[in-house]
Amino acid sequence: MTKNYQAEIVAVGTELLLGQIANTNAQWLSEQLATYGINVYNHTVVGDNLDRVEQAFRLAQSRSDIVIVTGGLGPTEDDLTREGFEQLTGLEIIEDKTTMEKIESYYKERNRTMTPNNRKQARVFKGATVLKNNAGMAPGMYIDYQDTHWFFLPGVPREMKQISSEELFPFLENLTGKQQVIQSTVLKFIGIGESNLEHELTDMIHEQTNPTIAPLAQDQGVVIRVTASAASKAEAQKLVADKKQEILARIGAYCFGEDEQTIENKVMELLAEKGKTLAAAESLTGGLFSSNLVSAAGASNVFAGSLVTYQTAAKEALLGLTPEWISEYGVVSKECAEAMAEQAATKLNTPTAISFTGVAGPETQEEKPVGQVYIAIYDEGKIVESSSILLSGNRNNIRERAALKGFELLYQYLK
Amino acid sequence: MTKNYQAEIVAVGTELLLGQIANTNAQWLSEQLATYGINVYNHTVVGDNLDRVEQAFRLAQSRSDIVIVTGGLGPTEDDLTREGFEQLTGLEIIEDKTTMEKIESYYKERNRTMTPNNRKQARVFKGATVLKNNAGMAPGMYIDYQDTHWFFLPGVPREMKQISSEELFPFLENLTGKQQVIQSTVLKFIGIGESNLEHELTDMIHEQTNPTIAPLAQDQGVVIRVTASAASKAEAQKLVADKKQEILARIGAYCFGEDEQTIENKVMELLAEKGKTLAAAESLTGGLFSSNLVSAAGASNVFAGSLVTYQTAAKEALLGLTPEWISEYGVVSKECAEAMAEQAATKLNTPTAISFTGVAGPETQEEKPVGQVYIAIYDEGKIVESSSILLSGNRNNIRERAALKGFELLYQYLK
Repeated sequence: MTKNYQAEIVAVGTELLLGQIANTNAQWLSEQLATYGINVYNHTVVGDNLDRVEQAFRLAQSRSDIVIVTGGLGPTEDDLTREGFEQLTGLEIIEDKTTMEKIESYYKERNRTMTPNNRKQARVFKGATVLKNNAGMAPGMYIDYQDTHWFFLPGVPREMKQISSEELFPFLENLTGKQQVIQSTVLKFIGIGESNLEHELTDMIHEQTNPTIAPLAQDQGVVIRVTASAASKAEAQKLVADKKQEILARIGAYCFGEDEQTIENKVMELLAEKGKTLAAAESLTGGLFSSNLVSAAGASNVFAGSLVTYQTAAKEALLGLTPEWISEYGVVSKECAEAMAEQAATKLNTPTAISFTGVAGPETQEEKPVGQVYIAIYDEGKIVESSSILLSGNRNNIRERAALKGFELLYQYLK
Repeated sequence: MTKNYQAEIVAVGTELLLGQIANTNAQWLSEQLATYGINVYNHTVVGDNLDRVEQAFRLAQSRSDIVIVTGGLGPTEDDLTREGFEQLTGLEIIEDKTTMEKIESYYKERNRTMTPNNRKQARVFKGATVLKNNAGMAPGMYIDYQDTHWFFLPGVPREMKQISSEELFPFLENLTGKQQVIQSTVLKFIGIGESNLEHELTDMIHEQTNPTIAPLAQDQGVVIRVTASAASKAEAQKLVADKKQEILARIGAYCFGEDEQTIENKVMELLAEKGKTLAAAESLTGGLFSSNLVSAAGASNVFAGSLVTYQTAAKEALLGLTPEWISEYGVVSKECAEAMAEQAATKLNTPTAISFTGVAGPETQEEKPVGQVYIAIYDEGKIVESSSILLSGNRNNIRERAALKGFELLYQYLK
């Protein structure tokens, strides 16, 4: 059995604490470490302050087997990663000859004067392994300090990634003994809430060990990540496949795809399979459904276009609805959604069309509450779906949820 | 002199430690807190594990005056924020009646059965202030625990942002506003790149002290945040106003607004001022321009609608372009953009219209390169703007930049 390594990622940099950038380094490293079966238990961000850097390192040393530090290795005064670790450990810092030569020749080749602070980038802990930086100036470092594996990497994502690939990952592969292989898949659901989905799987979630199953609410619905580790890739894949079947046997009706699949792509695929082209008529969504659909490459094969009839006058001009018809049924109604879908198919010469009308807010309209939405689907000469739903959130939440609901209804109808 | 508040942001969620998402919540919150002059000293991410959540909270309690926790408030078993804080503090958890009623009525209105785990979302600490969640189900909470201000917010960014704006920020304003006054304004620019803008202001950026000026590239162009602190609000406002005038004297031609102003709102305002209504015809943008415009409340006063003519067949059906015309000029051309704008105005009975056609990729079209975009503006019977531009990026970058360029051109024409 392999050791259960506990890892931590410490980012050093005030720019993160000011919100100037997000800590995407921690995200990327975590994703990579998961594939080696290494559990990341903490992300920490600390600013360019010597005592607080030391404090963060002290905590990491006390609780983690592997610590990956990003940032704070540059030439400027506020780069304090070396000094923080020195203050914690008392390790001596020396100048790395190879790095210093590299820095000097960089300036020499460009006929530029090297400012003295650049020497700082060549300073490394005595006894550390210097990790060559092929994408920038400051090298990384590895040192085993009192049985904790410390990696120091630059904060610039490109440099961090390159040193990780060339130096960190081979080390981790060696450390974890290549004994353990991780496989995972993400199952994507639509039309079922996170709590309902979890309710259906309560026992499985309780009993999970290997594979693990992790439900997560995302913008496009709920996803479940199934992750297994085993001695071989084939074995890990089989564990994932079996668990997947077990999940789908219960809630497969809501599962539209896996991994990189999106609901837009899925609907496009179903339209293509059935040889159909789609048109749309949009009121409250104002083009959002269409824009989401064409965000997927290849949309032009199945999507003709859309009539964005935002003002009531546009519904008269483009959909041929008369003022009398509108005063009888209103523009926020099931009848209007159905007429819009039929007219979209007719005007754009498609067999299939979808329509959206409703109240995005902030004001109510025709005495209908904010969030009231009507969606209709027309196919081969008749209305095949006509939904009335009440959505929550602000104006743009309602518009987004309405567009997503349209994809859900199309998926349910076409599948 | 004001108290120097020390803040910390703790994110709870294994999905962050698996690298499935980046901690953008911490970034956004940090950016906001900076404007209140509150120093964020730490970001911490901890997984869905009771003891480790408690440990992270214990550390935060020991070192911070303000702790903002995101995530772990949902209905599922791995949502452990409440339990972690309970374990640390021994505070009693009770059911919030208002929230429970909201949850129950949500399910009742939709004729859906509420699964028992949903009750969990209504559980709050006794004595806590419940922060209403207008964008989702689980409310936030505020509690002053042993002189540390604790805020618990949902992890879904949309919900987190809304509760922050409505509840957290007014609280912080109150907390910090009494002694030291921070005033800041964000100037918004379009049509000038970050490096050009910085070049124009080099000396000012170098010499900045109070106010500070911070240029930042954002989705809608470049912004400059001007922040001043002073003993009184009037004094801080004057510092900001003076610096603003200094900046605008140099690059005011590119400044379309301040603070919450968006280019969509600005264009809407200009249309309203001139008593004009707008129509659109969109090919590569596929409804994105229209959708962005109607994301602003009040769009129905000035925006009639859009013809999303995605397939060539749709250009024939909706715009009345003949196959002969198309084979002569092509659909990716200046001529096509101009015809689209004119047809949009005609079909939707508006004085003004804008059109977009081009190649979003991944494939070239009509021998035009990926990124080639044509935008035309029609007004009062004639074409008043016809632009050919080459945009970079992937399919959706190109679509977004094209829509944004449309807003820029409309702004330049209408202002």
